[in-house]
Amino acid sequence: MTVKELGEYPLVARLCERLERVFGVDKRVLVGLGDDAAVLDINGVRLVLTIDTQLENAHFRRRWMPAFDLGWKSVAISISDVVAMGGKPIAALLGLGLTGEEPVAFVDEFYEGAISLCQSTGTLLLGGDTVRSQIGLMVSSVVIGVIEGEPIQRKGAQVGDAIVLTGFVGEAAAGFWLLEQGVSNIATSPLLQRCVERFKRPTPRTKALQVIHSFPVHAAIDISDGLVIDAQRMAIASKVQIVLDMEQLPLSESLREAARIVGKDALTLALTGGEDYELLIALPSSVAKEFCQALVRASIPAHQIGVVSANHPKGEVLGRNPDGTVSVLQGGFQHF
Amino acid sequence: MTVKELGEYPLVARLCERLERVFGVDKRVLVGLGDDAAVLDINGVRLVLTIDTQLENAHFRRRWMPAFDLGWKSVAISISDVVAMGGKPIAALLGLGLTGEEPVAFVDEFYEGAISLCQSTGTLLLGGDTVRSQIGLMVSSVVIGVIEGEPIQRKGAQVGDAIVLTGFVGEAAAGFWLLEQGVSNIATSPLLQRCVERFKRPTPRTKALQVIHSFPVHAAIDISDGLVIDAQRMAIASKVQIVLDMEQLPLSESLREAARIVGKDALTLALTGGEDYELLIALPSSVAKEFCQALVRASIPAHQIGVVSANHPKGEVLGRNPDGTVSVLQGGFQHF
Repeated sequence: MTVKELGEYPLVARLCERLERVFGVDKRVLVGLGDDAAVLDINGVRLVLTIDTQLENAHFRRRWMPAFDLGWKSVAISISDVVAMGGKPIAALLGLGLTGEEPVAFVDEFYEGAISLCQSTGTLLLGGDTVRSQIGLMVSSVVIGVIEGEPIQRKGAQVGDAIVLTGFVGEAAAGFWLLEQGVSNIATSPLLQRCVERFKRPTPRTKALQVIHSFPVHAAIDISDGLVIDAQRMAIASKVQIVLDMEQLPLSESLREAARIVGKDALTLALTGGEDYELLIALPSSVAKEFCQALVRASIPAHQIGVVSANHPKGEVLGRNPDGTVSVLQGGFQHF
Repeated sequence: MTVKELGEYPLVARLCERLERVFGVDKRVLVGLGDDAAVLDINGVRLVLTIDTQLENAHFRRRWMPAFDLGWKSVAISISDVVAMGGKPIAALLGLGLTGEEPVAFVDEFYEGAISLCQSTGTLLLGGDTVRSQIGLMVSSVVIGVIEGEPIQRKGAQVGDAIVLTGFVGEAAAGFWLLEQGVSNIATSPLLQRCVERFKRPTPRTKALQVIHSFPVHAAIDISDGLVIDAQRMAIASKVQIVLDMEQLPLSESLREAARIVGKDALTLALTGGEDYELLIALPSSVAKEFCQALVRASIPAHQIGVVSANHPKGEVLGRNPDGTVSVLQGGFQHF
């Protein structure tokens, strides 16, 4: 059986199980594989550690991804993982694979983008590895952070919790399609421009950390592969049923406009698009409203979009439609 | 100007300078870019952090690199960087790019190799990221470690120091050529087999750490790109002239035999081959003999192969030939 035939979920599940058996018993491992990032206790310091890889033609195309944005995004997506664990990013390393045919200015701009994002989030960029890649551009990004207090895991969602979403989902995916389809009038439309920006330069929600740590947050995950698939990850880890209310899901004007232009359904993009790097958070319903208000005061849009409705041994995500009917939600990005 | 036209050294130097200017002033950064690994002080814990990337057809070929060995080597080379800073490895993460056509057994074996190396060095393998790579196999490895005491940098070599080498260099490069040329009788020759093993499954010198910390070591670097080029890195960082004594350079029987088979010069392979992941160490000549003996007692071959002969503003590496003449040494692996 090939990797493609098995699929990404079972592949990762096998791996988690194997590593958990060998290394999970070590008491320094606070959170092992299978969450947004690993958490280690090293001499009393709680470290969060994550790695992400982006490849040309799989994650981006050279023709529409400027070097500055590639550098920015590479660090941003790893910082997002650290934030989703409740961690404050400290330092980043980048591994950059180049064909060698790139102008030196490309490398300079790549690092300017990475530096810019690092500076805006208080992260130290410590460099990394540069290798020859005959097979196209490749970036691996590593971010370490520290957690004061308990790491926020995917698995802590409880029945009765509210499900809160920061920002707006679907915009990044709409931006991807605008780029991929080569839509020409993006620059003159602020609405379309926003979607493209969201895809190229996601902003990790570091500013939400203080609010998150002021509330009894039970679980969190960052939305990288799509709202439904990442909500499923939380539901599976927490062994609960999550019901998302389709009417409460915020669909931005930018998303609607871009969806119209690229000929896709806005709701589908919001549910399955991915790459938004927003946070999905579970916390007691009693404090959900106050929590959203605190996020908004920190300039972070936030909406309650669902509830944890029941325990569920396998975990599942349902959608409540405007007509009151409920259906199982599926879909999102899987590598294999 | 392209990256290839500029070359790897100036490219990395530009980057170091830029990052140093922005982030080097932060007092948490004990060692920034431009050494084997970065060293950070996080709440009193001194963390070492490094990333390496290996790409199909640049670093290895699928037809002769078994998945187990790829997993092993990916972690080993990053651990070697941590050890070269005087750090004890704590945890590793892997980013694996797969085409999807690989058998699931390939992934299992890859992780078995990585687990095996991690267990033998007391490193926790915490998983990582698996992505679809249409462009072939790709592995990024990240290792973090801790340093008790001062980090050992490239830049500390002093006039009067002895230059000590662990193990034997050139074997890994000879092993690469045996594989690349498809030499058929490797399995029946223990000498050739050793070279191939050295290339496929390098052993980071974690067991040297205790000895290193018992002596006043001034500088260290791991030999990844070749003895001469890595000695040059030490010489440049330390602003010294290093003289390597060609007669003292240990050329193993395995190297000589493999060099004969692949039609290359053994001394050239030892000087410029790379991928040995041995350590090059500078420490006061007065304790060099005792240091080598202590390494040998820890089952690590060690030889004094040169001296730091003078200060030198730009840094250089000379070779003393058996006839007493001295020449400037050059050569080794550069990506661009």
